[in-house]
Amino acid sequence: MNESRIERVLENMQKSGLEQIVVTSTSSVYYLTGIWVEPLERMLALYLNTQGERILFGNYLFGLSPQPGTRLVQHSDSDNPVRDLAQAVRPGKLGIDKMWPSKFLIGLTQLRADVIPVIGSAPVDDARMLKDAQEIAAMRYSSQLNDLAVEAAIASIHEGAAENELAAKVEEFYRVHGADHSSEGQLVCFGANGADPHHSPNATILRQGDSVTFDIFIPFNRYWCDMTRTVFFKTVSDEQRRVYETVKEANLSAIAAVRPGLPLRDFDKAARKVIEDAGYGSYFTHRLGHGAGLDCHEMPDVSSASDVIAAPGMVFSIEPGVYLPGKFGVRIEDLVLVTEDGCEVLNKASKDLRIV
Amino acid sequence: MNESRIERVLENMQKSGLEQIVVTSTSSVYYLTGIWVEPLERMLALYLNTQGERILFGNYLFGLSPQPGTRLVQHSDSDNPVRDLAQAVRPGKLGIDKMWPSKFLIGLTQLRADVIPVIGSAPVDDARMLKDAQEIAAMRYSSQLNDLAVEAAIASIHEGAAENELAAKVEEFYRVHGADHSSEGQLVCFGANGADPHHSPNATILRQGDSVTFDIFIPFNRYWCDMTRTVFFKTVSDEQRRVYETVKEANLSAIAAVRPGLPLRDFDKAARKVIEDAGYGSYFTHRLGHGAGLDCHEMPDVSSASDVIAAPGMVFSIEPGVYLPGKFGVRIEDLVLVTEDGCEVLNKASKDLRIV
Repeated sequence: MNESRIERVLENMQKSGLEQIVVTSTSSVYYLTGIWVEPLERMLALYLNTQGERILFGNYLFGLSPQPGTRLVQHSDSDNPVRDLAQAVRPGKLGIDKMWPSKFLIGLTQLRADVIPVIGSAPVDDARMLKDAQEIAAMRYSSQLNDLAVEAAIASIHEGAAENELAAKVEEFYRVHGADHSSEGQLVCFGANGADPHHSPNATILRQGDSVTFDIFIPFNRYWCDMTRTVFFKTVSDEQRRVYETVKEANLSAIAAVRPGLPLRDFDKAARKVIEDAGYGSYFTHRLGHGAGLDCHEMPDVSSASDVIAAPGMVFSIEPGVYLPGKFGVRIEDLVLVTEDGCEVLNKASKDLRIV
Repeated sequence: MNESRIERVLENMQKSGLEQIVVTSTSSVYYLTGIWVEPLERMLALYLNTQGERILFGNYLFGLSPQPGTRLVQHSDSDNPVRDLAQAVRPGKLGIDKMWPSKFLIGLTQLRADVIPVIGSAPVDDARMLKDAQEIAAMRYSSQLNDLAVEAAIASIHEGAAENELAAKVEEFYRVHGADHSSEGQLVCFGANGADPHHSPNATILRQGDSVTFDIFIPFNRYWCDMTRTVFFKTVSDEQRRVYETVKEANLSAIAAVRPGLPLRDFDKAARKVIEDAGYGSYFTHRLGHGAGLDCHEMPDVSSASDVIAAPGMVFSIEPGVYLPGKFGVRIEDLVLVTEDGCEVLNKASKDLRIV
């Protein structure tokens, strides 16, 4: 158990009136125990209560071995996995991790009618928002590699290239550089395909004048990087240049706005204002960003609706974009770390307009 | 909606006394509607009841457009996603898909205290066990490509090869041949690493006399292939040959045992008997196989505990193995389709002992 993390979680539980929670997501269990298990259809659960109990439940196949202070309760494939958990929990409200498969929750409530399940991920999610020194080091390392990955991706652009070919180049780069797993779904978009922010790379062939957007992300040592760069192939039109410089200014304006004590919606607003003033407001169709860490998308939400207050240690993306249907798209994304007086931009790859 | 599939699901519901269910897994919703959505943290739910109601709930971002006969109810990111579902369901028992995130179930039961959630995946899972003609064609195609993939993988073996290098070759083959997504976690194991049935490929270098196990799987057109072949590099020892021939005979004996009307545990037993008779019983440490289709692992379970009765249209793996710790491992896996009088082996790649 990481004691300072667990203390923060217990404080968050007390603040929100939750005396007991069940932590089940792979990343949250890892955050608190240092044990990484992807349970798939099997059950993994860390039970915590404000009286100081810590019990880790899991299948024998996981080979669990928690540190002293955490009780281990194992089950086999032929056991009812929630049986032991049902014996451990106390009557009343029980915070449940948001993505826990319903089959376990149903099994638990069938055995314990005196338990009132409520959504209970916030105490851990809120703790995870504030990265500690070890996590910050991991995120810097991961983003440093991503800077290299995007330069390699840009260098791989050539006449006749296909989107999925360039995506495979990025995947190969990640593999060779020791990413935690094979990468899937790297986004590479040429020209009009770039006008769909979630376009999946296919056999589309690059043509002169296309925008080329790379949105690439992978975990190294469990911590995710995530960045986007857009360049142009051989030529750039006046409109492309105008959109590019607008998105770049939006990215820089949001970064300049980041400092502790402000609600995250202010940063979304700073970027959105630049794009609106340039007349492209209706083409910036998504939120400014999302938290990143042990999950690629985690808390906090960085949108116009977010009233989370920025604090040192938060890491999130700043990724304004403009998408002109049928024409092209531009997005520029960095991860930033909130510091005492502003933010540190974790991605260093150039954002100057590039024609390759 | 696929009417014959939905009819089977409704029959299964009636048989099990379930008047209403919520189907939420990507593959099950696809099976019934032809719509493929990976909702991640958002909500996707198909509500069915035995009175004939069919309602598809989802986020506007999914761009859902179901066929006539299915009502569509959409929500946005700022809505409570379970609100509309809570209005639609009837009082009493409600079958819930087993992996539905708890946050939705908790939200639903908070709005509808008169609903009693029970685990309710079986009506769809049982229907999905029996593949129809279109699915059988898809599974044959997928396994045909996997036969080519494993031959390409075996051909890529060379002096100085690393496990993760050969895994990347398989991934590249899948990509070039139009797999649905990048493949991750292909299993390639050399020598002693092969004694761990779930060893992940790393930088281990191939040595003369190593066993080389490829366990490779990917979906094409949504349907998974999954096969394993083990070969030997340059030389084979007497013990390796003995184990190989034992596992091969176990694979063939199980295949010979498959026919409709028998419980699946009989097939596990047929393979296990061969391995036990050869003195390796304690080294065959897992079940014989698993169903495959829209998911790589789905119903039915093919283990010593399975009382599911084989029926035409079932597709499952037959994958006996022997794992000698510190030495080597051998596994030989095929997908088979149960037919009227036996089974069709979907994988045709040779199972003769090969020294490469």
